[in-house]
Amino acid sequence: MKEKIKIGYIGLGRRGTDVLKRCLCEMSDVEIAMICDVYEPLFEKINSILKEKGRQEAVTTTDYRDILKNPEIDAVFVMTGWYGRTDIIKDAMRAGKYVGFEVGCAFDIQECYDLLQVYEQTNTPIMMLENCCYGRLEMMALNVKEKGLFGEIIHADGGYHHDLVNCRELFGKEEDEDRHYRIHSYINRNCEQYPTHELGPICKVLGINRGNKMVTLSSFASKAVALKERIVKKNGADGKWANYDYKHGDIITTIITCENGQTIRLCLDTTAPRPHYSRNFTIRGSRGMCSEESKALFFDGMEEPCRNNLDEMFKDYDHPLHEEYVALGEKGGHGGKDWLVCRAFVESVKSGKNTPIDAYDSILWLAIAPLSEASIELGGAPVPVPDFTCGKWEDREPVTESKYCLDKIVVDKTVRIFPE
Amino acid sequence: MKEKIKIGYIGLGRRGTDVLKRCLCEMSDVEIAMICDVYEPLFEKINSILKEKGRQEAVTTTDYRDILKNPEIDAVFVMTGWYGRTDIIKDAMRAGKYVGFEVGCAFDIQECYDLLQVYEQTNTPIMMLENCCYGRLEMMALNVKEKGLFGEIIHADGGYHHDLVNCRELFGKEEDEDRHYRIHSYINRNCEQYPTHELGPICKVLGINRGNKMVTLSSFASKAVALKERIVKKNGADGKWANYDYKHGDIITTIITCENGQTIRLCLDTTAPRPHYSRNFTIRGSRGMCSEESKALFFDGMEEPCRNNLDEMFKDYDHPLHEEYVALGEKGGHGGKDWLVCRAFVESVKSGKNTPIDAYDSILWLAIAPLSEASIELGGAPVPVPDFTCGKWEDREPVTESKYCLDKIVVDKTVRIFPE
Repeated sequence: MKEKIKIGYIGLGRRGTDVLKRCLCEMSDVEIAMICDVYEPLFEKINSILKEKGRQEAVTTTDYRDILKNPEIDAVFVMTGWYGRTDIIKDAMRAGKYVGFEVGCAFDIQECYDLLQVYEQTNTPIMMLENCCYGRLEMMALNVKEKGLFGEIIHADGGYHHDLVNCRELFGKEEDEDRHYRIHSYINRNCEQYPTHELGPICKVLGINRGNKMVTLSSFASKAVALKERIVKKNGADGKWANYDYKHGDIITTIITCENGQTIRLCLDTTAPRPHYSRNFTIRGSRGMCSEESKALFFDGMEEPCRNNLDEMFKDYDHPLHEEYVALGEKGGHGGKDWLVCRAFVESVKSGKNTPIDAYDSILWLAIAPLSEASIELGGAPVPVPDFTCGKWEDREPVTESKYCLDKIVVDKTVRIFPE
Repeated sequence: MKEKIKIGYIGLGRRGTDVLKRCLCEMSDVEIAMICDVYEPLFEKINSILKEKGRQEAVTTTDYRDILKNPEIDAVFVMTGWYGRTDIIKDAMRAGKYVGFEVGCAFDIQECYDLLQVYEQTNTPIMMLENCCYGRLEMMALNVKEKGLFGEIIHADGGYHHDLVNCRELFGKEEDEDRHYRIHSYINRNCEQYPTHELGPICKVLGINRGNKMVTLSSFASKAVALKERIVKKNGADGKWANYDYKHGDIITTIITCENGQTIRLCLDTTAPRPHYSRNFTIRGSRGMCSEESKALFFDGMEEPCRNNLDEMFKDYDHPLHEEYVALGEKGGHGGKDWLVCRAFVESVKSGKNTPIDAYDSILWLAIAPLSEASIELGGAPVPVPDFTCGKWEDREPVTESKYCLDKIVVDKTVRIFPE
């Protein structure tokens, strides 16, 4: 177990800066040794954050290969946009650096097989930093499932319901919008291209790649009208982004069937007007269910109404990790999820063990977008989901995930930066 | 316009009795002239209800053909179970009697083509009595759509989320359970067999068969475990219904694509534990949405949060029909829906015009179950949805549905039985 690790941090955009500042800067066992971006003006900003946080300044470079060449670096964070990042991840694996990378999707299934090949050759752990796997509700669901209280799991729902049109996630801020990438995906692609916030935690609960696997995927796109109509309304008919045709259907529905008989239903809903953010995280079992939308955990036979009972339920069913975390006080962004997912990755690097969201999980989640794109092009025909484990799913790490997560994440008392 | 009509009433089970008692008995322009059931003990019960309501006793028969032979009968209600009712509807059409029939589904697509053939031969109007087309939220959505306030409609959601395991809808009451039918469908079929409560109103809003049509349907079933597990828990391993294998998947998801680019998502969810009833009626447009689950009507740009604003919204956007109806005070069951749908049918019979949910609509909605069954058997492959209108959808009754409904339903002042 290493006492301290050195990381290289690639991609200093909004999300990259946020995670660095709010999570990694708070961990005394992590040294942000090198930073990298193609946009040099960001270096000064990041180094002043490090200084402000009482941390050592980082060595800067515009070429990520400088980081990979440095033998002192234990791990890299890849927080760049989706274009070209697979090459960075592969190069880092070949250099033997653990890779934590921001959520997203592949453009083509070949990217997934390429990553798989390098992983099988190098055995270097990678991890998609899917923060929602560490959400409090999602972890409670995992805990309830592992206690057997849902009975047999039969179905899961999830979605990314987030109106991005008035949001910098889609267009970028005024001053940096030309460097933003997601809008281009809406111009050129029609698919479920942002599934992991809901799918990640669902996979945990369903034991995907660990005794269960996905079998088929079917996707359906509504017509694409709201995004353009709203941009024109906002920016004028000759305004920015108004003169593109957007391929991305406003509502994308995806159904995944699983080896163990469950169905998973996903929805990407980011361009039509809607009032509130939701991931609609829902687990249905033969003895109970949980629902983000109803804010409820429900067991068969409970008295109705069972909405808005989560605060009560957390008392009894909170995941042990979250219980500890909540007691310590929230750290990092997004209700602690960002901090916890970074911590999980850091603990893996320190212990030299595999990551809790490992290469097979990460590659599978990246594959959803191209599979969805194919199914939509085929009129909703189900397409087979590759088994990237090549049969290893059958007996990989049986159902002890929460303990597994916990072992990986729990904070070493000696490095804890929380007040006790 | 007939001042008064005589009806024959076929099927005196729980639902049949309820609609007869709470709706038809309250209409002074409707005479329940004949009643029919294979289970004779019900005759006395029904006639005592009629007497209690100050109505004439009905002639009784166990053979529905006696009703069809009676030249004084204007219309029949078919409120039987799903087995064999298609024959009754066809015979009634051939006899020239308007047919109103309870919701449900076909067992095979051939049933739909048979009904279509008889309809095209006889031109006798029929109507699936889909009460939810007359729900207040659903009618408000129709009103909002017709005012253009949703913008372009892009997607609709709906479901039948109703835990039937502890409910007499599935098993029947103790004393009459052997006569109940739905449980047999759960033993023998795996499909979306109860779609119309949500699909009916969605079709109205999307103008299906009236300028729009369904193109493909894909269905997916989760495994079937909750129903049996819960029956065994309730009745014991050797108890009633415990020794069957149920084919019906606990959660059935169906996606329908439409000619005009919308997607429709349905969910049948009746056997796994869940806390509250919902039809999850949801309409998404480029400028607004409505959602039963959020109890919200939302237009782009409105201030958040927009949950639970329906009471406010009804003031401005209530359908004119409901506005009048609410002012008069609720009649009949299910928040007025039962009364309104019966009234719509009765008005059609009186005026001699077509029904607002007509043969093409009814037959299409009946067809969902066998199409869904086929798609599930084919692993979720999309199956084509027949165009029962044979191309007439293109210019059938353009978008004036709310006016159309209103004309049909609004109560003739001379026969109104509400206090004024």
